[in-house]
Amino acid sequence: MNLIVDVGNTYVKFAVFFNADLIYKLSFKLNEFKKQYEIVKKDFPKLKKAIISSVGHLSKEQVELIKNDLNVMELTSELKFPFKNDYQTPKTLGVDRVALVCASVNQLPNKNVLIIDAGTCITYDFVTKENHYRGGAISPGLRLRYLSLNNLTAHLPLLETKTPDNIIGNSTESSIHSGVVYGAINEIDGVINQYIENYSDLTVILTGGDSKFLSNQLKNTIFAKSNFLLEGLNFILEYNSK
Amino acid sequence: MNLIVDVGNTYVKFAVFFNADLIYKLSFKLNEFKKQYEIVKKDFPKLKKAIISSVGHLSKEQVELIKNDLNVMELTSELKFPFKNDYQTPKTLGVDRVALVCASVNQLPNKNVLIIDAGTCITYDFVTKENHYRGGAISPGLRLRYLSLNNLTAHLPLLETKTPDNIIGNSTESSIHSGVVYGAINEIDGVINQYIENYSDLTVILTGGDSKFLSNQLKNTIFAKSNFLLEGLNFILEYNSK
Repeated sequence: MNLIVDVGNTYVKFAVFFNADLIYKLSFKLNEFKKQYEIVKKDFPKLKKAIISSVGHLSKEQVELIKNDLNVMELTSELKFPFKNDYQTPKTLGVDRVALVCASVNQLPNKNVLIIDAGTCITYDFVTKENHYRGGAISPGLRLRYLSLNNLTAHLPLLETKTPDNIIGNSTESSIHSGVVYGAINEIDGVINQYIENYSDLTVILTGGDSKFLSNQLKNTIFAKSNFLLEGLNFILEYNSK
Repeated sequence: MNLIVDVGNTYVKFAVFFNADLIYKLSFKLNEFKKQYEIVKKDFPKLKKAIISSVGHLSKEQVELIKNDLNVMELTSELKFPFKNDYQTPKTLGVDRVALVCASVNQLPNKNVLIIDAGTCITYDFVTKENHYRGGAISPGLRLRYLSLNNLTAHLPLLETKTPDNIIGNSTESSIHSGVVYGAINEIDGVINQYIENYSDLTVILTGGDSKFLSNQLKNTIFAKSNFLLEGLNFILEYNSK
């Protein structure tokens, strides 16, 4: 039984896998780390191994807490991965993006796959049918777009994510919702179309915190896989434990 | 002879119009306001009227400086405008957006026009051929997207605007450039396409600081008009002076 620890920019996720099956998942803020770890440890006493993926900040103490109980692997670019990597700067390739590529190679081998992770950032990652990771793109996620309009301009309010009734916003609030939500949707559909121009048999995976909100608004056919990153992390843990 | 003062989120612009012709234009940071005003006043002694449009912060002293010399109009929602306004919150409709709509009604009457202003924010404003302003959208501009990736995430660098060679970025830097630049281009093209679905005879105006950078990368046909906002402000000044 494996514990997956995914530390993002905003939240920490715990997932418990029994073989390839996710049997438990929890998302919480970093300051609840110790409390939530103690709960998961008590609820799943058969946990043996753990993998930690961190794009945010996990303290040494928090890592040690898990190391006291479990066989811990930290996700770095030094581990073995089942794909050829074209990235020129593999050490700065986000560990979350590496995990997504591993999930793709494991679950969709021999396909040209574009993985779109709509979270704090929207990341795009492309793997060819030869299991060759080519790279991708990083743009601001929905929340970052709302925040940037408020933080970095003089007058605009901070709003919660919402799809407006119409692309033509007739108030400041509905204008912002239209710009952020339809902006991101048109961005994603347009990027998918650019890939399809070169890879007509493209498979598109949509994952991340905003994937549910976005998935039924896109024109292109996508497969929504909410646990893709966690599944990739579990795969890496097994792949490197052999 | 008119002085146009456009105070944006980042820069101040001065423009001098002789009738409908822009004969001088200068962009500078707010802290140079006094110095630059004295220069323009000396170079154009025939200046009589001024209009101030401010989405940023202009101090009382800075306004008084101009009022000492010229007949000053401050752009507010209380002025007369040559269009029917559907906006539910006209008092929070950005004055820059009002000026763009005025330029459109003046220069492109009896056309369905989408005005895209790519500056600190990307604003979309739609005016029907009946001179009826319907509203639009606000999304983060290129600079805001770069800033938000750096300011509001844990690890990403702050970059200067640049079009990458390929939509598939193979380094952190080229991934960010792809996400920001192709993201915005796909957003803009997608939004234009959504409007064209309902208004097949749409005319699209692209203006703002990033319009030159973006214009030749868009798939849709657009008219690049770098002085559209200033022309709109000059029109408002004349329209309300009669």
